[in-house]
Amino acid sequence: MKYDIIIIGSGPGGHVAAFKAAKRGKKVAVVERAELGGVCLNWGCIPTKAMLKSAQVYHYFESAAAYGIDFEGEVKPSLDKIVARSRGVAEQMNKGIAFMFKKLGIDVLAGNGRVAAQGLVEVTKADGTVETFEADNIILAAGSRPREIPIMPVDGRRIISSREALTLSELPESMIIVGSGAIGCEFAWVYAALGVNVTVIEYLPAMLPLADEEVSRTLERSFRKMKATVLTGTAVKAVRVDENGCEVDIEGKKGAQTLRADVVLSAVGVKSNLEGLGLEELGVKVERDKVVVDDHFRTSVEGIWAIGDIVATPALAHVASAEATVCVETICGEQPHPIDYTTIPSCVYTTPEVAMVGLTEKQAVEQGYEIKVGKYQYMASGKATAAGDRDGFVKLIYDAKTEKLLGAHIIGGSVTEMLGEPTLAKQLGLTARQIASTVHSHPTMYEGLLEATEEVL
Amino acid sequence: MKYDIIIIGSGPGGHVAAFKAAKRGKKVAVVERAELGGVCLNWGCIPTKAMLKSAQVYHYFESAAAYGIDFEGEVKPSLDKIVARSRGVAEQMNKGIAFMFKKLGIDVLAGNGRVAAQGLVEVTKADGTVETFEADNIILAAGSRPREIPIMPVDGRRIISSREALTLSELPESMIIVGSGAIGCEFAWVYAALGVNVTVIEYLPAMLPLADEEVSRTLERSFRKMKATVLTGTAVKAVRVDENGCEVDIEGKKGAQTLRADVVLSAVGVKSNLEGLGLEELGVKVERDKVVVDDHFRTSVEGIWAIGDIVATPALAHVASAEATVCVETICGEQPHPIDYTTIPSCVYTTPEVAMVGLTEKQAVEQGYEIKVGKYQYMASGKATAAGDRDGFVKLIYDAKTEKLLGAHIIGGSVTEMLGEPTLAKQLGLTARQIASTVHSHPTMYEGLLEATEEVL
Repeated sequence: MKYDIIIIGSGPGGHVAAFKAAKRGKKVAVVERAELGGVCLNWGCIPTKAMLKSAQVYHYFESAAAYGIDFEGEVKPSLDKIVARSRGVAEQMNKGIAFMFKKLGIDVLAGNGRVAAQGLVEVTKADGTVETFEADNIILAAGSRPREIPIMPVDGRRIISSREALTLSELPESMIIVGSGAIGCEFAWVYAALGVNVTVIEYLPAMLPLADEEVSRTLERSFRKMKATVLTGTAVKAVRVDENGCEVDIEGKKGAQTLRADVVLSAVGVKSNLEGLGLEELGVKVERDKVVVDDHFRTSVEGIWAIGDIVATPALAHVASAEATVCVETICGEQPHPIDYTTIPSCVYTTPEVAMVGLTEKQAVEQGYEIKVGKYQYMASGKATAAGDRDGFVKLIYDAKTEKLLGAHIIGGSVTEMLGEPTLAKQLGLTARQIASTVHSHPTMYEGLLEATEEVL
Repeated sequence: MKYDIIIIGSGPGGHVAAFKAAKRGKKVAVVERAELGGVCLNWGCIPTKAMLKSAQVYHYFESAAAYGIDFEGEVKPSLDKIVARSRGVAEQMNKGIAFMFKKLGIDVLAGNGRVAAQGLVEVTKADGTVETFEADNIILAAGSRPREIPIMPVDGRRIISSREALTLSELPESMIIVGSGAIGCEFAWVYAALGVNVTVIEYLPAMLPLADEEVSRTLERSFRKMKATVLTGTAVKAVRVDENGCEVDIEGKKGAQTLRADVVLSAVGVKSNLEGLGLEELGVKVERDKVVVDDHFRTSVEGIWAIGDIVATPALAHVASAEATVCVETICGEQPHPIDYTTIPSCVYTTPEVAMVGLTEKQAVEQGYEIKVGKYQYMASGKATAAGDRDGFVKLIYDAKTEKLLGAHIIGGSVTEMLGEPTLAKQLGLTARQIASTVHSHPTMYEGLLEATEEVL
């Protein structure tokens, strides 16, 4: 069988590439060795959001009295049911992908994909049989998996990765989470909200180290309110597993210390799935664990393209999808603009939520910008007060000379949904005046964007 | 005492005008006869949002099992506590206004304000004493109150307005709500969620008649799922109060009918507070219950300005605030652009929420546009599925020729927070391509804007 395009991987890079290509009339196949939809949909963004929602609902029970709800009796999170619901959500979504593939006439080739030669993909099925398919273009979208570090080998029982954290059979009493990126923070929130004694260990000086410093501090404070322990500037030196759990040697501000917990969650980033794709044999250039591509996602070998977590751009689902679009448009002879990587929004779905795009205050200063910072505290917000959730703020970084938006850093309730406006503004180089002259709905969290903007005018 | 500006009313028009003027160095006083912050903050937007939040939390209890929370016992909404919380939120906010007034050196003149002559405001205090103040400019921002109709006179006990609906002492068993604008819909949701047997009666053919027809239908369906009855195309002919409640004669699709309920909530719109302002004596031009103003809010009498619900623009808090800004900037000699009233966002905080801006599909067609409609169903959304709330959609109306956004109509969870992006796009005449070339975060509700936009490209 000869295809126009074969895509290896069906995650937010691969399946979006397949949709776009099929909608443009291309004959497309997708090679997938696991569940359709990839990690994001099956073991990442989506099932975590389902667990976060359950944890939030449980959290509401605990604060029922504050909202005027009388409640007598016993309430307990059932981890079994929470996990089953989360798995059900993932399944619902991957069935959706299967449905769309069928509808668009996209073939699914189940198995491990390897590029045998230019224009040739070899698929090894679960039963070991191998089939070969031809394609004019091959898109590698093989994604990533949790990174493992030698001192903390994942055994799936005592030392777990995000994958096992999505399917624990019972709630541990205590959990040490190593790493406080988005994944570490979200699981920390889930388990802390469900009553687990959570300790987060971060090597860098601040929780959620890629965020604006003030955002990090506010998030840290909110975790402390949840009775979670956050240890920043702290290195993990050794992890020992014994019958009853784990011992973790750390070294931080207070010197060396040993902590105990039932479970250790390793959340120290992701590693590209480059193995077995045939890259070396083909001479596809790889640097520092990433496939080298141009800004339209051509690799060093003609007809082979790469997108998503295996290239050196932010390992985010929506980045993979955007890259899929540009890649397929390029293959189809359109002339898409390259992606502006200074304008990639990112979200963390803790409570409060974190939403950010563009430069942090520190980055802007380091890059030599003269800046104006507009800030709005949610303590002053009617919507936040009515929701009973006044923590957080909007912080906008404007270029003092041009009054263009350089960055937005937001922490608060539902703020991930308001990221569209500052992202659009940043992308198109809009000015404070243009944002301020736009009417913002009251009462909302997003009107904080207007308030913060008016501060700089 | 001589002021630069005296403002009558401290609602979202008046207090924003005061803030802006004081920040520009003007000597400002605000006349207020009731609570600082006006209806929005004390008897409108804010306390309703607090009640909605309590109702939502209670609603979560009822669906706890679906989220994997085991719960045995009894749960009951305590209306006393819900109302007390809501009043507390309003109080917190109006203390915030008082604090800002103090901080900015804005005088508060407690009492009824009347313009005695050009440059002269008479304030009648609660004790009947009258004081007169001079001002170069007077801004009328007197707001509105619930409209009453003769067949349904509000007695505050059996026939109530939104004000009493915020302070009921006990939950009625049944409630008939007449009118399904934002206010009617929000109270319908609150009381239906709290277990009241709610019937909504709407004279026009659709619930939330100003919304896009598909949005209305989806909202109606969601109310039916809550076991509320929605009767559209139905006129109220008579309301009789007796010892045990109310009898309401209606005439609708099924002919004439009489309904009974403990309480009738009249939510048939608002009426401007024009009485006692001295308009007639001064010759300030009024038409159809609204003060006539130019697009910078000058009335027909020099030095007298009017903004907010008393002028013929949408009676929305954020419109009043935007008008306050333009009005004060004009008084201060700046040259603000007039407000673009085709780009006023509006929100309804039911579950699902409704968010809209610009032309509906029907309006766009009626205005002669050739349109492209992009739609995205939240059933396909990972975020919506994870949240357990898949009802709703994004519907974007684009001009087929220019590919500029004409309108956005959204219904779903948390969608009121995503209105910034389409409002900015509509305001600045941005195109589908500009929106689609902007990376949207995954998984969010707001990425539906990208999906719907890609549909039209």
